[in-house]
Order: sequence, then C-alpha cells, then structure tokens
Amino acid sequence: MTDSSLPCVDDLLAAAARVAPHASVTPVLQSQVLDALSGARLAFKAEHLQRGGAFKFRGACNAVWALPEAVAARGVVTHSSGNHGAALALAARTRGIACHVVVPEGAVAAKLANIVRHGATLWRCDSTIAAREAMCAQVEAETGATLVHPYADSHVIAGQGTAALELLGSHGPFDTLVVPVGGGGLAAGTRLALQAASPVTRLVLAEPEGAADTARSLAAGERRLDFTPDTICDGLRGTLGAPNFALLQGAAEVIIVDDAATVAAMRLLWQVLKQVVEPSSAIALAAILSQPARFAGQRVGVVLSGGNVDLDALPWAAA
Amino acid sequence: MTDSSLPCVDDLLAAAARVAPHASVTPVLQSQVLDALSGARLAFKAEHLQRGGAFKFRGACNAVWALPEAVAARGVVTHSSGNHGAALALAARTRGIACHVVVPEGAVAAKLANIVRHGATLWRCDSTIAAREAMCAQVEAETGATLVHPYADSHVIAGQGTAALELLGSHGPFDTLVVPVGGGGLAAGTRLALQAASPVTRLVLAEPEGAADTARSLAAGERRLDFTPDTICDGLRGTLGAPNFALLQGAAEVIIVDDAATVAAMRLLWQVLKQVVEPSSAIALAAILSQPARFAGQRVGVVLSGGNVDLDALPWAAA
Repeated sequence: MTDSSLPCVDDLLAAAARVAPHASVTPVLQSQVLDALSGARLAFKAEHLQRGGAFKFRGACNAVWALPEAVAARGVVTHSSGNHGAALALAARTRGIACHVVVPEGAVAAKLANIVRHGATLWRCDSTIAAREAMCAQVEAETGATLVHPYADSHVIAGQGTAALELLGSHGPFDTLVVPVGGGGLAAGTRLALQAASPVTRLVLAEPEGAADTARSLAAGERRLDFTPDTICDGLRGTLGAPNFALLQGAAEVIIVDDAATVAAMRLLWQVLKQVVEPSSAIALAAILSQPARFAGQRVGVVLSGGNVDLDALPWAAA
Repeated sequence: MTDSSLPCVDDLLAAAARVAPHASVTPVLQSQVLDALSGARLAFKAEHLQRGGAFKFRGACNAVWALPEAVAARGVVTHSSGNHGAALALAARTRGIACHVVVPEGAVAAKLANIVRHGATLWRCDSTIAAREAMCAQVEAETGATLVHPYADSHVIAGQGTAALELLGSHGPFDTLVVPVGGGGLAAGTRLALQAASPVTRLVLAEPEGAADTARSLAAGERRLDFTPDTICDGLRGTLGAPNFALLQGAAEVIIVDDAATVAAMRLLWQVLKQVVEPSSAIALAAILSQPARFAGQRVGVVLSGGNVDLDALPWAAA
C-alpha cells in the first residue's frame, strides 16, 4: 500500500541520500536571451535530462529503495502509463525487483514500449479509473507487489524534492522557485526542499487553465477535484493529492496558464535553450512570461520537469 | 586581411586564454541509451549551447580579440550569412567594435534577423561568390574593417580548437574524437587540441556525401574543390580551406555520411539526449552509428557543433 503520510525535512534528506547512487545530478542551464525577455535571472534545472527523461525517476527511486528487503522482493506496481510508469520500471531495475504497470486500453504505444524497454510487466484493463484501480488491487493481491502512487505518496514526494534541493545547493540563493503542478508530487517536494534549505524563497506553481484544481483547492482551503482536464500538458492532468494539498496549503502561489502561452514558451525553450522539453515543463516559463511583474529583477529557479514528446506531433506543426 | 598562416599549439593556448572571459564552458552530455546503441562510451561536448548557438563564437571571438587596438577600432567584416556571421557580430560586440556582414540576396530572413540582433550592419549583394568577394573588398576599403574568414584563418582555427581542448581536459582521455567537417575550421582546430593535449587520440571527421571534398582532398594529397554541394548539412557546404588542409593532412580519417543517416541521428539526439541540434552537428553521431566497428568499446568524444534550426521545417516532418 502506498504511504500517504506527510513527509518532513528528514524524509527529504533521507531521499537525497537514497537516490544519489542512481539519479543523475542534472545540469543547470542559463540564457542571457531568456533573462532579457523575462526581466529576471533564470536558472533552469534540467530534469528532462534525468534518467527516463523526467524528474519522476527521483520519487520512484526513493520509494523503491525505501522498501524493506522482504517487501521489495515482491515487487512494485502502479497504474500510470506516462512518465511515472517508465520511472518506476527503471527504479525497480536499479534494485533488481519486479515492476508491474497497469495500462488502460488505448494508451500510447510509444510510451508502453518505453515502459517495457525498462523491464516492466504490462497489465491491460479498461480505461475507467475503477477498472484501473481494480486491476491494481488484483496485481497487489496476486503478486504481493507494493503500490507506488505517482504523487500522493510520502516517499515519492520526498524524492521529487531532491531536484529543488540540488538546484538550491548548486545555484542558490533564489528569490522564487517555479515548478509545474499536476498531482502535486514535484510541487510538494519542492516545498519540502525550501523548508530544508531556503525558507525565505517564494514557491510559485504553474498550472494549466484546463486543469486548475490546485489553484481552486488552495483558494478554497479544501481539495476541489470535480473537473475534466482539458490541456496539452498531459503530465499535469492528475488531481491534487491529499498529502500534496496539505503540504502546499499556505505555502505556494499558483499562476494559471493557457495552453497557447505554454506552447509559445515550449518553442522558446527549444529555439533559445536548445532543449527538447514537453508542454508540462514549458508551462513554468510560460507562467513567468505571462506575469513578468511578479518576477522582475529576481533570481528565479525553474524546474524543467520532463522532455518526453512525440517528435511527429509537435504542437506548432498543427498551425 | 584574414590571417591564413598555420596556427600552432601556442596559438591554441593563447586562444584559450583570449576566449575564456567571453565564451561559455559548455556542458558535456552522456547517455546510456546512446552508449548501448553505439557500443562505445560517448561524451558529447554541447557547443550548440555556446553563445550564438554554435562553436563558431570561439573562433570569431579569438580573431576579434587578437587584433591590435588600432586595427580593431576599424571593425571586422565577413560574408557568411550563417552561424559565423552571427558569431562574428556577437564577438565584435564583446569588444565594442563594428561588424559588417555581406549577405547575398535570398539569404534566410531568420538568420539575417539574428545577425542584426547582435548589432551587425548588413551589406546586400548578388548571390555569386564573385559578388560577395567584391562587396567584401569594397567594405574593407571603405571602412578599414578586417576580413575574418569563416574557417581559412589562423585565429579562427585556433579558437575553434578550444572546444576540444575543454572536452579533453574535463572528460578525457579519449580513444577517438569525432567532429563534423565543412571548411575545416573545427576539424583543424581539433587537430591542434589533440597535438596539445592528447597526441594518441585518433581524429575522425564526419563529412556529408554531398560535399565530400575533404575526403577526396586528403586521399589525393591535394585540395579537390570542384563540386556542387548537395546536402541537408547547411553548415558543411564550404570547401576545405588551405591552412585547414595543411593541418589535417595525414592527421585525420574521414567517414562519409549520407543525409538519411544524418537525419536519423539528429532525431535520436532530439529524442534521447533531448538536445536541439542541427544536421551539421548530428552527422558526427551518424558517422559513429554507420561504422560501429571503428568505435567498438572505445571512449569517444563528439562535438555537437550547433543547434540553429528552423522549427517549422524539421527534416522528418516532410516524410
């Protein structure tokens, strides 16, 4: 069963030690052109260069290596067909244990191939949430594998926080950190990193207009999850997790970004920074460029969260 | 007048000191996936992340800063509308001097805008070589500006060599270095770097099938320049320079690569390494993948030379 207790700073530091032998220390990129455009001094933590092409490997790796030996031996399971599924497969392989990934009918073949390439076993089910959860429970029962939730999990949150911890250590101090928010794994982990290393730094979350449950939830003081996601940011369609909400409440601002601004920022990151990042990453720069007054003259750290895109279906090719 | 004497190791070391305050120390990227694909251990020097988006800034910067004060004050001129034009403009700006760029009718508007953005003055002429050289001579006569040739120039060659020098220093030793070859600025500079820092390392040049004058010239023992370039590698259409030939003779092997292999390698670099590189860069990986037996088990350094591409005209979008 996934661990949905609240992680603390000690959990973050334990995660940093746990993932260090496996995760890459990703580079930090800077650009005079983007600084001039934004009116701020930007430092981009290149997590799209992380193993598996996204920060997700950090959380998955921490969850896998935190398991007691006997539990780990029975493997891990999840029902994400996106970056978390591939990351968990890769993390399981670093420990030499089985990984089961429940995938809905109609999942993208290229993403599934990626998960299989990392050595995981696929379990197919109908595309409803209920079917996925039922299949997950069945795999847990049959194999004894431990469920690792993509974001509403204490070890996953702590693991994701190690990206910001590295950024603060290598390029701090910062006035503000900006990260994307979907389910809130990276966001909540980044909040932990700020608690640990830079409490005065402001945390800004970039959220797509078509999946703005975090903005609504933080404004309401309780999770507001009733929405149908409609955004190009496929990594940010999840609903804010309970521990994630608890960690972020009162500790983060949200900037809501429309998809057109995200696509423009993505193109800018490709053209100027020469980095292949996905929309769910580019939204962080889009947030800064859409509200420059909130960042003017500041030192701003940005996590480029992932770079897994379909090169045959670029968003600007459609226009 | 451009300096077409042969640069030596001392010139390379002087160049390294001269460009250090201005050029970026670019990162070196590695990938387990590309290592597995190639059967070698690859280290990619990310010169597409250099200022101006290509290694060309190094040579231009060295040429600009090597000029005596009184000569520099009259500015510099070139007739490249590609990466060298933009690099020279940028380099001139670091010294606060004028830069003139002669551009043929029909040059790509985006590239011209880039040159103008860096503060250079454009001089338009007919697209023939004769017209470009005449206009260059006219600008030299009228302004007293010094011609900086894109590659057949001692300071330019020495400057380009600083990329390999950095790579050898930070990630050496290497069995082999692989760089693209067009006019031979990067290639000849890399040969100097090997003389200076790693004489046992083999130098392999990747050259497009549709502009393979270096392979023919080195095989014949004299420059063979009679050809009409036909390749997607727009940075490699120039003909091998005289000092470049002299430095490379007997010191380099050439692998000829067809454009389809270059496009496939470019796509791999985008997909796996998440780097926006142009065809003229990707050809180096294509050379390795096309003749894997020549690199099997080796430590191989690769210079990713530039990343200036038109995102609206990707080579795989046409298919």
